Amino acid sequence: MTAPEELAERVRDGDLRIHELEDHADHDTAAEARRLFVERETGTDLEAIGDYAFPAERADPNIENMIGAAQVPMGVVGPVTVSGGAADGDHYLPLATTEGALLASVNRGLGVIRDAGGADARVTKNGMTRAPVFRVAGVAEAAETVEWVENNVEALRTAAESTTSHGELLDVEPYVVGDSVFLRFAYDTKDAMGMNMATIATGEACDLVEAETPASLVALSGNLCSDKKPAAINAVEGRGRSVTADVLLPGELVEDRLHTTADAIAEANTRKNLIGSAKAGSLGFNAHAANVVGAAFLATGQDEAQVVEAANTITTMDARERDDGTTDLYASVSLASLEVGTVGGGTKLPTQAEALDVLGLRGGGDPPGSNADALAEIIAVGALAGELSLLGALSSRHLASAHEDLGR
Amino acid sequence: MTAPEELAERVRDGDLRIHELEDHADHDTAAEARRLFVERETGTDLEAIGDYAFPAERADPNIENMIGAAQVPMGVVGPVTVSGGAADGDHYLPLATTEGALLASVNRGLGVIRDAGGADARVTKNGMTRAPVFRVAGVAEAAETVEWVENNVEALRTAAESTTSHGELLDVEPYVVGDSVFLRFAYDTKDAMGMNMATIATGEACDLVEAETPASLVALSGNLCSDKKPAAINAVEGRGRSVTADVLLPGELVEDRLHTTADAIAEANTRKNLIGSAKAGSLGFNAHAANVVGAAFLATGQDEAQVVEAANTITTMDARERDDGTTDLYASVSLASLEVGTVGGGTKLPTQAEALDVLGLRGGGDPPGSNADALAEIIAVGALAGELSLLGALSSRHLASAHEDLGR
Amino acid sequence: MTAPEELAERVRDGDLRIHELEDHADHDTAAEARRLFVERETGTDLEAIGDYAFPAERADPNIENMIGAAQVPMGVVGPVTVSGGAADGDHYLPLATTEGALLASVNRGLGVIRDAGGADARVTKNGMTRAPVFRVAGVAEAAETVEWVENNVEALRTAAESTTSHGELLDVEPYVVGDSVFLRFAYDTKDAMGMNMATIATGEACDLVEAETPASLVALSGNLCSDKKPAAINAVEGRGRSVTADVLLPGELVEDRLHTTADAIAEANTRKNLIGSAKAGSLGFNAHAANVVGAAFLATGQDEAQVVEAANTITTMDARERDDGTTDLYASVSLASLEVGTVGGGTKLPTQAEALDVLGLRGGGDPPGSNADALAEIIAVGALAGELSLLGALSSRHLASAHEDLGR
Amino acid sequence: MTAPEELAERVRDGDLRIHELEDHADHDTAAEARRLFVERETGTDLEAIGDYAFPAERADPNIENMIGAAQVPMGVVGPVTVSGGAADGDHYLPLATTEGALLASVNRGLGVIRDAGGADARVTKNGMTRAPVFRVAGVAEAAETVEWVENNVEALRTAAESTTSHGELLDVEPYVVGDSVFLRFAYDTKDAMGMNMATIATGEACDLVEAETPASLVALSGNLCSDKKPAAINAVEGRGRSVTADVLLPGELVEDRLHTTADAIAEANTRKNLIGSAKAGSLGFNAHAANVVGAAFLATGQDEAQVVEAANTITTMDARERDDGTTDLYASVSLASLEVGTVGGGTKLPTQAEALDVLGLRGGGDPPGSNADALAEIIAVGALAGELSLLGALSSRHLASAHEDLGR
Repeated sequence: MTAPEELAERVRDGDLRIHELEDHADHDTAAEARRLFVERETGTDLEAIGDYAFPAERADPNIENMIGAAQVPMGVVGPVTVSGGAADGDHYLPLATTEGALLASVNRGLGVIRDAGGADARVTKNGMTRAPVFRVAGVAEAAETVEWVENNVEALRTAAESTTSHGELLDVEPYVVGDSVFLRFAYDTKDAMGMNMATIATGEACDLVEAETPASLVALSGNLCSDKKPAAINAVEGRGRSVTADVLLPGELVEDRLHTTADAIAEANTRKNLIGSAKAGSLGFNAHAANVVGAAFLATGQDEAQVVEAANTITTMDARERDDGTTDLYASVSLASLEVGTVGGGTKLPTQAEALDVLGLRGGGDPPGSNADALAEIIAVGALAGELSLLGALSSRHLASAHEDLGR
Repeated sequence: MTAPEELAERVRDGDLRIHELEDHADHDTAAEARRLFVERETGTDLEAIGDYAFPAERADPNIENMIGAAQVPMGVVGPVTVSGGAADGDHYLPLATTEGALLASVNRGLGVIRDAGGADARVTKNGMTRAPVFRVAGVAEAAETVEWVENNVEALRTAAESTTSHGELLDVEPYVVGDSVFLRFAYDTKDAMGMNMATIATGEACDLVEAETPASLVALSGNLCSDKKPAAINAVEGRGRSVTADVLLPGELVEDRLHTTADAIAEANTRKNLIGSAKAGSLGFNAHAANVVGAAFLATGQDEAQVVEAANTITTMDARERDDGTTDLYASVSLASLEVGTVGGGTKLPTQAEALDVLGLRGGGDPPGSNADALAEIIAVGALAGELSLLGALSSRHLASAHEDLGR
Repeated sequence: MTAPEELAERVRDGDLRIHELEDHADHDTAAEARRLFVERETGTDLEAIGDYAFPAERADPNIENMIGAAQVPMGVVGPVTVSGGAADGDHYLPLATTEGALLASVNRGLGVIRDAGGADARVTKNGMTRAPVFRVAGVAEAAETVEWVENNVEALRTAAESTTSHGELLDVEPYVVGDSVFLRFAYDTKDAMGMNMATIATGEACDLVEAETPASLVALSGNLCSDKKPAAINAVEGRGRSVTADVLLPGELVEDRLHTTADAIAEANTRKNLIGSAKAGSLGFNAHAANVVGAAFLATGQDEAQVVEAANTITTMDARERDDGTTDLYASVSLASLEVGTVGGGTKLPTQAEALDVLGLRGGGDPPGSNADALAEIIAVGALAGELSLLGALSSRHLASAHEDLGR
Repeated sequence: MTAPEELAERVRDGDLRIHELEDHADHDTAAEARRLFVERETGTDLEAIGDYAFPAERADPNIENMIGAAQVPMGVVGPVTVSGGAADGDHYLPLATTEGALLASVNRGLGVIRDAGGADARVTKNGMTRAPVFRVAGVAEAAETVEWVENNVEALRTAAESTTSHGELLDVEPYVVGDSVFLRFAYDTKDAMGMNMATIATGEACDLVEAETPASLVALSGNLCSDKKPAAINAVEGRGRSVTADVLLPGELVEDRLHTTADAIAEANTRKNLIGSAKAGSLGFNAHAANVVGAAFLATGQDEAQVVEAANTITTMDARERDDGTTDLYASVSLASLEVGTVGGGTKLPTQAEALDVLGLRGGGDPPGSNADALAEIIAVGALAGELSLLGALSSRHLASAHEDLGR
């Protein structure tokens, strides 16, 4: 009996627990044993899941109870031509998805942007947040706590930054609801997405708040952060990077390449992305920004659940008449809360690291933060391309047929 | 020179366009050629991306411009013990993620649920939606259009259902904003997530609306659907499956296994998930439902960008005093808009299909729709486990240290 | 010592409680006594408050502890020229407000609308809602309750309608969150705003739900109604009347009367009312609809706190090019949840009843509901006028100076 | 023919326009003439509207086209016992409304609060906002504009404050959406509600922005202010005063006076105000705060349409077990955006000024701002009383019958 088989039997017999396998074998053997156990329990064959292309121990920081890997098709679009605050020039953007027609659509949009000379992009705000919630006796103590916080930002900074070599505390914003006090800490986490850094630093600052005020910590995250929830606070104030990209498309380009007009696209955008989203009570005024962000996140090792905040995107499209009477299309996307990093998290995994390599953005930037800024800007241009392409298709009634042709 | 190298050169020379490679070689060769081209353009090595475990042509419906695959670590948690409307008994749930500590956390929660006898779950609503937007001359025509729609639902049904062998039109709901009329079509798409089916069927119905009313179609999706945007209409009315899961945990279990009390967890939930989310202007009143849903979506071939809607989740936790004075914990999650399928989309890809096999839910259910219902219920219980575990950790102040230990 | 003085002394001495005065004197004497008591306790003179123009007993259904009346300046604007589903022709609209410049602004807008031939208006949806919340043991009972409700709408209708001679139950929509079940009852309440009618009818239906299902009523209003709160459910699904009004303004009119252009107004509307509101996380995509609605509500005896829901208004403004090259302005307002009545509530009070007389809409309409429909349509046109005027002023930078001139 | 009759005829004959009457007669005569004109045009009798209790010219800053006054019944509740940051001791609170049972309900709540020793209250944030929107060429100019603003706050302050003797610029926060730049200016406007002050000061600052940056002003209000709209930005960040009030009610008091238990009220609050509002996609997590605020606004001359923002209120209710086993009720209200003033606007009108006299808060406070702070705190306690009373009634199923008894 091979080692994995023996281990699988010990799990089955209750002798070992399923998460303890790594204590008894190397990571690949443990994964194989776990796979065997699951295969037998469920009568399945996990050959593909087991056929992953990296040493299992490289995934140790990213997963527990590993059985293998999900393989998601990855393609490439581009070049993305961008003139940004951090990104510049042409980049191929890897995207991983299972949604047929997505890459074709984004690629079409990128081609149009390229022909227009490329897109501009800027990170206009940056700050990873964590917002603990404290209990106080009542509003009098709440006011007292808020006052202490406002007078002691430096002490909180010292405490918070003692836990990190890179992170910088940017701001602490207090919010009071009855006998709950929320403090929203915002950090510059440079090239890291920074959630863990922000959590740990905030934990240290919370100790100080508890020591110096009547407030008692209830939860290190009080949902005003707000992580992986569709929250207005992120749409309004931002989280991670707030990034904007835009392009001015000559009218001929719209007609030749998108087979519609600037006016038609602008109308579709207004009725769908602005008025439709307004009527839907939405925080997302876009067509499918989450599609592009999600695929880029998956390819580059970002936190896939943070696609939620990325959907807080506003797309604008305006027809602009030129002096010669032709009409151009101004198009922009503004992603309020795009949480990205080029170090840490899933970025070190082999396929994800290679995808970052394709972008030239693997690891820390020089200056620190510039790689994550550039990644945000490139993704924003990708999202812009996706919006242009889909709005173009919708305004020429191609959505259903595009899916029929490509999506099956 | 090998075939892929030659093809890569032709792309470089502008002789072929990057998306045309499949026209000149089989899918794997095309992917290799594309990889070679990108490697040379960007000075990178895409060995891991190229080391995927399936014939490239199987991904043809899912991606264009393929270069390989993203490999995301997959693990397994469970068993998930559930008594649902469609799911029943014990299931291992595969999860793919790059977020360290997530599976350990969910698994801890599932263990507690198991020890409490399992969770209940129900799909309480089901309907995939698509909402085109039409232009009318003004409010008089808008009223006329709405009236026609309300009087001709059967004709719309016939038109819509003519395009699909499985789907059933459930409802058409009109909304008027000035000279825009939105019609929200809802379909029972059985075991398919159903976006494409809904889009194509709605396209057919739109032809009828245009023929019979003064309304002109502007966009087949008018954002009242609302797909991949954080929209109240989904949180309120649902999209895909509305699914709820709950469990009653004996107080001893909370203390022994979560190292806290029912009262402490209930307080943390109220201050964080209810009051904190309220203050954040959120549509998501939960701790991290998107984490679990996102990982399950990735493992089972769902649309990763639809994690956005899944985040419209409300978590409740209440302390319930027993007659003997001990206090139990009632916990629930209600996912308003969980869009899942067991056929179509990414579910046919090898690793994803195996993950569905582990759940026993690959392909169409008997009766139709029951597999997707069961998947929704099992994911809901997974999300419930994640909420219990994180709330337990927060209320015993373990969040930061859990990440320090496991997350790196 | 006069009777009021004696009564005031008895209140001061603790012999009578302040709300018991009507038990010992007629309503005017009681109000005078209460005024005397308050004057002495607070060292004030309430002469103006006491100088009200109606018998105090007429206000008995509307207030307790009466001391007199607030007098709010009332003016008149118009004529409002409207072609509606219920309203037709020219109407003077009374408005009561303390905000200088408001009537002048609305009147300016109405003049422009009049010169364009009047506005169209339609009530596109109608239903007063009340949504009780029930407790169940868990999701299994929740699903059972929902099923019962869906199968017993007729029985619920019979129960609900047994309490009212006018109201009709239109719909019951169930929503499940964990162990809470919400049922949103919607009624046609004809010419009454209908909150009380809906509450009483729903109370009766709740008895039936409790008798036939495991659900226990927790609160007769569970906030999915949603009354006097800024809730997406009202903005999306409507409450009271959903009413839309629009007008097409010839370009010359925009230039001559609003001193700006259709393009400039359309741009201001897009950047402010659509994009600005989107970025603000708003449910109101308008400039100041609440101003006009609030003033009309106050003049005509509506519930002043329901201005909250009225603010769920979307304003659209588009430039439409004519064949001759000139550009017209299409403008619309869509009020999702305007709660109005012409019977009951404050409509019977003397000044309010006179204001309804001015509109020709006092009391029940023929057919029932037509007066309230007409009131909704006229108010919508008033709101449209206010939007046009303010957007015109903003786009010609007149806001601050208008307030400087008129606002003090 | 009397002067008013002659003037009315001249309006009818088109010789005078309806808003020009004040140019030809004193204000009361002009109002009478206008009334006559409207009476004849509409066949009505406006006797009550004409029977107002103040010289018409006193309303000149508040209205145009005056015909008289709306008389809204005013009563008094209290005493309001409050220990605030600005308010202290006992106050009678005048409320004007047409909703029967409201004052009785609030008064019941205030009695319970009084018996518990009074409520605490605090203004935790203060700032009246105005947010113009500017057009730029694109994101590059947007970033440039934002940078200029961040580096020139002092110059903006000088410009803004040059227009006001009282107001102080607190903050300027930039937001970018594509080619739109929004700047949210926040001011301490002391005892004035401050909208006009903020508008005028911001207008001056905008001139500087336009002179020094590429940005062009599109609208002085860009809806990120956000005035009279239900916007998350106000609910999250506040506008006017953010004020919180709370009380701890002994369990016996809850039982004796509200005829229910702390547990029952806490449950009703959680299911209705927290979970129900969550499911409704609401920004208001309360029962009927707008009722109390609206009635206080009307009585004291506030801007009635700003009830919209006041509805952004979160109510919390928790059962707190004492050592002796009895259970008390902690209750709080947090009004994020309460816009109040004791000078300017409608506060100078006779009945409104008397109502402020009753509160001892007429005119400017010492120090400046303290009167408006105190007004905010007292209204908050009034709202708290309304919440306690209604939640008490709901949890003892009294809502419908209370309305049946009192509301008619």
